[in-house]
Amino acid sequence: MKHFVPATRTHYGICSDSHVRHFSIPPASPGASFQAAHVGQELVVHGFLGKRRDKSAGLSFCPIESAVAKVQIVSRWETEGSLQHRAHMALRAIPAYSPVSVTGILEASDKPPGTRPHPDMKESKSWDLRLQKIQYLNTFPKNIIVSKDAVWPPKSRHLQIRFDPLLRDRLQFRNRVTSLLRKCLQSRRFTEVETPVLFKSTPEGAREFLVPTRKQGYAYALPQSPQQYKQTLMASGITRYYQFAKCFRDEDHRADRQPEFTQLDLEMAFAGSFDVMRVVEQLIESILKMLHNLYIPSDVNGVRHPVWRGYEDYKQIPRAQVKESYEAHISPENRPRYPYFVTNFPKFTYESAMKAFGTDKPDLRIQVPFITNITPVDSIVSEDFVKMITGLENPIVEACKFRLPGSVNDNRAFIQEFFDELAKTPQKLDPHTAPGVLVFDPSKPLHGLSALGHEAAEKLASMESEYWPRCEDGDMIIFVARKNEPFQGGSTELGRIRKLVYDRAVARGILPKDHKWQFLWVTNFPLFTPNGDDPGQGGAAGFSSTHHPFTSPASTKDLDLLATDPLRAKADTYDLVLNGVEIGGGSRRIHVAEVQEYVMRDVLKMTDAGVAQFSHLLEALRAGCPPHAGFAFGFDRLLTVLCDVPSVRDVIAFPKNNKGEDLLVGSPGPVTEAQRKTYHLSSKS
Amino acid sequence: MKHFVPATRTHYGICSDSHVRHFSIPPASPGASFQAAHVGQELVVHGFLGKRRDKSAGLSFCPIESAVAKVQIVSRWETEGSLQHRAHMALRAIPAYSPVSVTGILEASDKPPGTRPHPDMKESKSWDLRLQKIQYLNTFPKNIIVSKDAVWPPKSRHLQIRFDPLLRDRLQFRNRVTSLLRKCLQSRRFTEVETPVLFKSTPEGAREFLVPTRKQGYAYALPQSPQQYKQTLMASGITRYYQFAKCFRDEDHRADRQPEFTQLDLEMAFAGSFDVMRVVEQLIESILKMLHNLYIPSDVNGVRHPVWRGYEDYKQIPRAQVKESYEAHISPENRPRYPYFVTNFPKFTYESAMKAFGTDKPDLRIQVPFITNITPVDSIVSEDFVKMITGLENPIVEACKFRLPGSVNDNRAFIQEFFDELAKTPQKLDPHTAPGVLVFDPSKPLHGLSALGHEAAEKLASMESEYWPRCEDGDMIIFVARKNEPFQGGSTELGRIRKLVYDRAVARGILPKDHKWQFLWVTNFPLFTPNGDDPGQGGAAGFSSTHHPFTSPASTKDLDLLATDPLRAKADTYDLVLNGVEIGGGSRRIHVAEVQEYVMRDVLKMTDAGVAQFSHLLEALRAGCPPHAGFAFGFDRLLTVLCDVPSVRDVIAFPKNNKGEDLLVGSPGPVTEAQRKTYHLSSKS
Repeated sequence: MKHFVPATRTHYGICSDSHVRHFSIPPASPGASFQAAHVGQELVVHGFLGKRRDKSAGLSFCPIESAVAKVQIVSRWETEGSLQHRAHMALRAIPAYSPVSVTGILEASDKPPGTRPHPDMKESKSWDLRLQKIQYLNTFPKNIIVSKDAVWPPKSRHLQIRFDPLLRDRLQFRNRVTSLLRKCLQSRRFTEVETPVLFKSTPEGAREFLVPTRKQGYAYALPQSPQQYKQTLMASGITRYYQFAKCFRDEDHRADRQPEFTQLDLEMAFAGSFDVMRVVEQLIESILKMLHNLYIPSDVNGVRHPVWRGYEDYKQIPRAQVKESYEAHISPENRPRYPYFVTNFPKFTYESAMKAFGTDKPDLRIQVPFITNITPVDSIVSEDFVKMITGLENPIVEACKFRLPGSVNDNRAFIQEFFDELAKTPQKLDPHTAPGVLVFDPSKPLHGLSALGHEAAEKLASMESEYWPRCEDGDMIIFVARKNEPFQGGSTELGRIRKLVYDRAVARGILPKDHKWQFLWVTNFPLFTPNGDDPGQGGAAGFSSTHHPFTSPASTKDLDLLATDPLRAKADTYDLVLNGVEIGGGSRRIHVAEVQEYVMRDVLKMTDAGVAQFSHLLEALRAGCPPHAGFAFGFDRLLTVLCDVPSVRDVIAFPKNNKGEDLLVGSPGPVTEAQRKTYHLSSKS
Repeated sequence: MKHFVPATRTHYGICSDSHVRHFSIPPASPGASFQAAHVGQELVVHGFLGKRRDKSAGLSFCPIESAVAKVQIVSRWETEGSLQHRAHMALRAIPAYSPVSVTGILEASDKPPGTRPHPDMKESKSWDLRLQKIQYLNTFPKNIIVSKDAVWPPKSRHLQIRFDPLLRDRLQFRNRVTSLLRKCLQSRRFTEVETPVLFKSTPEGAREFLVPTRKQGYAYALPQSPQQYKQTLMASGITRYYQFAKCFRDEDHRADRQPEFTQLDLEMAFAGSFDVMRVVEQLIESILKMLHNLYIPSDVNGVRHPVWRGYEDYKQIPRAQVKESYEAHISPENRPRYPYFVTNFPKFTYESAMKAFGTDKPDLRIQVPFITNITPVDSIVSEDFVKMITGLENPIVEACKFRLPGSVNDNRAFIQEFFDELAKTPQKLDPHTAPGVLVFDPSKPLHGLSALGHEAAEKLASMESEYWPRCEDGDMIIFVARKNEPFQGGSTELGRIRKLVYDRAVARGILPKDHKWQFLWVTNFPLFTPNGDDPGQGGAAGFSSTHHPFTSPASTKDLDLLATDPLRAKADTYDLVLNGVEIGGGSRRIHVAEVQEYVMRDVLKMTDAGVAQFSHLLEALRAGCPPHAGFAFGFDRLLTVLCDVPSVRDVIAFPKNNKGEDLLVGSPGPVTEAQRKTYHLSSKS
């Protein structure tokens, strides 16, 4: 960078000069100035220059990225030394992408400008501006090379946002969805209440970030969710609460999680699961309606990208600086629309979802005739076959059938390769799982099912139900055995295989990509889960709350099970799943202090000190707290699915990588000696 | 708390019983059910019971605090053992304030119910519900005594929110203002973008909270404001940004500051101060319009409380559980309105504000004829007099005149007492300040001005201007000397005295409380301030940025001063002041990388390492960043003034005390040994 010296203005470099210049740039004409009645008038546009096209020495065109109107600069001169000539020379000296102030005469344009309109723009008619004067306001450096479809490193996030119109669209989309949901909630008499970010550590579940104070040994903790504060609001007579809340978890770096994330958090008093699910469905409905009415689904590099159709003549924009296939050349009438149909979402209990799909996040796009539900085959398969696929005593044996369009041999090769490659990935199978794979093959004895024995092969070949069409040539059947015990955790091995085979078939183009949105509820998770890696509530029971310790049992029967067999108790919970992704979850809460304390003390076997950390919540419940239930959207994740992008990073302006770093600003940063002392951090060991 | 055992349901206590009960409570009737056409129908209401009035053994009335309608339960029975009799007995057994589900027959009411309607309620017509059935959903404990106007300890914030309708109103008001401002900004094509809360430490100004990571020696920092991210957005082509942002400062505990607070943060590209100030004025205008149209100013215990006039027949509600004088008995026509007039707010430079009012946060309600502007009297007063009030060489002597309605003696006593008591408070005067106080007293030689000498007394007595009316009997004139040097900091001693005298006179009822809203801009603060207590930017220059190091000089002249006399350079800043409170501030930013680096490196004399901490910002500016300017409302403080309450704690649901503690939840809390190790906190020394 050139060294800047402000002493004598005549020595200013171009950059410092632009700092001075903008003290006196003319004000921009408002968007409303761009209309037929003003043709011939002099207007001012501020914006970023696009790529100039020089038609001749005397004629140039240059798009300008303005937030108020779609404008192309037309620069033409006839007389040397004229105003137009000087402006023309100035234009040609300014590098593309520099911010400028342009003065010109408004002209109607029949050609569209060579740029995509600004994402904020409402009007999309194109205008020409005959150049009279141009001032650069800063300069775009030569050593930043802008190329089409460039992917900038995370350190240059500002360039990614600036030059990736899809990313800027998604940030706009996020803004619009946020606004819409707020509007819906306000109209339903929800009150937005801000709850503290500087909270304290409580054994709620995940690991929390701490914020040490200057008083040694004391710290705030950043909240995993506003759960305890929102329940306190229910006890305080705020009957319907919501908040777009920043939440924090210091998790070990799992795929595509952020240490900070946004929840749309809500809670309703005098309400149960049904009431909350109804409101959540209404919110989803409003989003789908907006998409249907105002967005165009545009397939870009295999991603279905929502394009704001506020740009009325969007179809006219040429590709110049726009990603390939960004938009199909189609007439407005035939423009594709997002589907819009919402009734009640289907509901599955955790148990039934695990049974039918082997996962608590079923993707309902995975369906017959291509892929069957998971089906128990214990009554069919022989003991010999079972021994071939498992060493477990008295296991449950399940099967899933896959029908891909290829030939028998294609399919055999596909599935062979699938398992070979799976073994090399971090998602590899549990070593105790040995799936049995059979291909229905007319050229083989017993159609390739001979491993099952004669009787079982016959039965399987003739088996037929709504979710298991009769076998056809080339069908692949995968058998997996599992322990004969209640479901636990997020998926079975067969459930994972089912999803991974589907994903691979879609990725390979063997099955079509399905753009439908398949929502469903998964309800009644087990109240408790045997302790795994999560810190849980630190009780001595050997198990922890599956969601959080404030979750209500699902029924009086489950309330009774607390004393006798808590691991069998079901919770009054409801996760919302969209295309195999959990986009939110909620529950009815325990609203009676004695019950809450019983769960903590006698069921989870937390210590007195542990329970005491929740005394504020117990006090709030004790003060006549009404029944209440709530929900939280994982808002980043919801947007990820709606925008059909692979990562939450694609819908966040400034995301962190999977090490929790923001490489743009370089956070987290090293602690200084002074900070170390102030906040009692230990020195390097 | 009674020990809860769920094994056999017949032994449930009342509370656990209510946990079970609400599995089967009937759904509440929607608000729309409460209309004349439905009289005689059976409806269900959920809500909190109010105080029951028993008219006789067979007749009781009881209000119920419902979020959907204003309802009074009427319980009457004739036949023993009847449905009504059983319901009546049940009602009488339930303690007031318990949450209940009530089934009853809708009847028109000509009497208003003895309760204030729920703050969320839209309709306010009163209804009676003839009791058929009542179920408690939890119970309100006997040992919580609810009395009118109770102030609960901070530990019981939930009870304060529940039983202080004014506080709940304010939370609703906050919600409405938030919604309104979002709407205004969205309609002006501002995009809400969420920026990270886990940022990194940069020497921007105040002390930052740290969030240590598991990697020893590394930490996130919580942002003082989203300043650097929002400037990056300007470089990224997002032309208009806003966000309700949580900000954090670990400040030494000054009066009425919170360690976390909310800013309404905004930024505009291709814009200067003028553009931003215009938008901010439009936002304020929208708030005042809403207040004018939808709120009733209601004087409650000396506070002007905004009451939502959605409650149409609000005036009919008796005082039962409502704070005294909460609302005047006035007809809707004569109902008072908030004033609504906004044009351009007056603008004062920092220099002129300091000169005329002795403060950078002038309260324009302090005005003639009661209190004059500060007026220089150097040309009038004698050297002898100056020596009496100061030991300074060649000082500036200023005076301010106070006219209170009392007699000469009253006023003399008032001002005597004022200075006596001031000396005992933490706000006491600088020990070098010895104000000269004279009272214009016809009974004294030279009207009490003899200390000035004959000539000066004459001049002063006959002095007259727009901001200094001619002396009258009883006028008090206070003279203070100050160093003859440029203004620095927030106020002069005379400015402080002027404000404190006004506040005291209003508190004593000597001057009327003025409910006008007086907005003004204070612009062009000095770019730099000699180092005080604040850490500043840690440069070696001996001074720091007054606002932050990204602030642009006000003019080319000020840009030139950077090299020659930086302390004289003015900044392109604008603070918005309302009734003597700074409710927001903003500036044009430096948008040219070389200028920004010059300020950091050559003016503030930051080290290479210090400048490197801002490299992300310098990179963003370098990439052709357009000129930009922005603003941030101190949102809590704005609401505090609009609600006429003394503290930001009164407009925050869960505030922290001035030690930074939330006594409700007990944050910050002690760090556990495991946390200490995980995050490398040092053990107790």
